[in-house]
Amino acid sequence: MQASIQVPADPALQYLLRIGDTCLILGQRLGEWCGHAPVLEEDIALTNMALDLIGQARGVLTLAGQRCNPVLDEDQLAFLRDERDYRNPTLAELPRGDFAFTVLRNAMLSTWLKLLWERLRESSDADLAGIAGKALKEARYHQQHAADWVLRLGDGTEESRRRIEAALAQLWPYAAELFDADAVDDAAEAAGLGPAGVDLREPWLAEMAEILGEVHLPMPQQGSFRSSGKRGVHSEHMGYILTEMQYLQRTYPGGAW
Amino acid sequence: MQASIQVPADPALQYLLRIGDTCLILGQRLGEWCGHAPVLEEDIALTNMALDLIGQARGVLTLAGQRCNPVLDEDQLAFLRDERDYRNPTLAELPRGDFAFTVLRNAMLSTWLKLLWERLRESSDADLAGIAGKALKEARYHQQHAADWVLRLGDGTEESRRRIEAALAQLWPYAAELFDADAVDDAAEAAGLGPAGVDLREPWLAEMAEILGEVHLPMPQQGSFRSSGKRGVHSEHMGYILTEMQYLQRTYPGGAW
Repeated sequence: MQASIQVPADPALQYLLRIGDTCLILGQRLGEWCGHAPVLEEDIALTNMALDLIGQARGVLTLAGQRCNPVLDEDQLAFLRDERDYRNPTLAELPRGDFAFTVLRNAMLSTWLKLLWERLRESSDADLAGIAGKALKEARYHQQHAADWVLRLGDGTEESRRRIEAALAQLWPYAAELFDADAVDDAAEAAGLGPAGVDLREPWLAEMAEILGEVHLPMPQQGSFRSSGKRGVHSEHMGYILTEMQYLQRTYPGGAW
Repeated sequence: MQASIQVPADPALQYLLRIGDTCLILGQRLGEWCGHAPVLEEDIALTNMALDLIGQARGVLTLAGQRCNPVLDEDQLAFLRDERDYRNPTLAELPRGDFAFTVLRNAMLSTWLKLLWERLRESSDADLAGIAGKALKEARYHQQHAADWVLRLGDGTEESRRRIEAALAQLWPYAAELFDADAVDDAAEAAGLGPAGVDLREPWLAEMAEILGEVHLPMPQQGSFRSSGKRGVHSEHMGYILTEMQYLQRTYPGGAW
C-alpha cells in the first residue's frame, strides 16, 4: 500500500485545495452518472460536466503541488492525501442522490464556481487567472444547464416538483459553509490570490433567488447548522468516495492498473 | 416496471444495431473508468472516449429507430430492449478488467471501428455516411491512444508485459466473431448499406500485426471458439451491464430519475 503524502499548512495552498478539491469531488460525483442517466443526452451532458470539472481540478492541483516542498504532482494530490487533507466543502461530497438532487446541487455549486472564477481572472497568480478564464466559460454552461433542469422539474409533474422541493430542503443547509470567512480566506484576499468566500454570498443569493424564483420555490431560511468540509472535517460519505478513488494508486504505487 | 420494446427482424436494422450497440456497450465499459483511472490524465482520456462512443451510439440508434414501426427513439433502443435484442459482439461486453485489458480491447475494437467507419462513409444511407465521417476521426484517435499504451505496457516493466500478454490471451478468441459472415452482413453489402464483416478481416489483421509487432507480441492462433453476441447470444456479463443501464428507465418509465 502506498503511504499518504503530507500537505503543508500554508494558507495559499489550502485556498487552492479548496477550489481544486471542489472540482475533483463534484466531478467524481457527476461521473457516477456515466452510463446511468435516464436518457443518452443527459448521460453525455453530465459526463461532459464531470470531465470539465476534473480538468479544472487537474489544473488547480498542479498549481497547488508547486507550493509543496518537495513539489508534488496533481496525481499525488488527487489520489494520495488523507481524508482530512481534502478541502472541498461538504456540499460537493454528498452522495449523488436522484436526478433532482444532482441538478440542484449543480445549480448551487456551478453558480458559486462561476462567481469564483469570475473573480479569479484577476488573481495575482497568473497561472490561476489563466485557468479561471477557461473554467469560467465551462461554469457558465454548467449553471445554465442546471438552471434549465430546475425549471423543468419545478414546473413539471407533481412527482418532479416534490423531488426538487425535497432536494432543496436537503441541500440548502450545506450552502452556508461556502461563505464562512476564516484565516485561509483572509490571507488569500490580502495576497490578491482570490476573493474571500464571504464576498460571494450576496451575488450567489441573488442568482439562486432568480433560478428558484422562476418556479416559485422559496429560498429556505439558513439555520445554525454548519458543515466543515473545507476545513478537512468531512461527512461520513467522504471516506467511501476516497476509497473508490484511491484504490488503484494505493494498491499499485505509480502503476497503471 | 417498464415493459421491453420489441425489435423487428429486418436485416438492415440488425446491421445498424450491431454498430450502435458496439459503441454503446464499449462506451459503457470505458465509462466505468470515470473517477477510477490510475492518473487524472487517463481518467479524462478514457472518459472522453466513452463519450465519443456514446455519441456515436446515439446517432446510429436514432437511425435504427427510424427503421422500426412504430418508430422508436434512441433512448428506447438504448434502454428498453431485452438482452437477446442487443447485437454487439461479445468482445465489447466483457468486464472492464485491468488497465492492460482495457487498452488492448480498445486497440482491437477501435481498429475494427476505424476500418468500418472508413467504409461506411460510402454507405447508401446518407445519414449513416454522415455519422461515419465524424466517427472516423474519433476512432483514429482512439486507435492511436490504445496503440501507444500497448507499446508502453509491452515495453515497460516485467509486470506490465505480463499483464498485456495475459490480456492478449484472454481477448484474442473474441476477435473471430467480428468477421463471421452471415445473412445480415450479406443483405447490408447487397444494399450498399455497409461492408460485410469478413471484408474487414485482412486489413484488421494487418493493423493489429503492426501494433503488436512493435513490442514483439506474437499474434495468437485462432481456435475454434466462436462468441455470438452479434446474433444476440451474449456472455453472462451482459445481464449485469443491462441491469445497471436499464434500472432508471425501467423503474420510472419516461421519468428523469
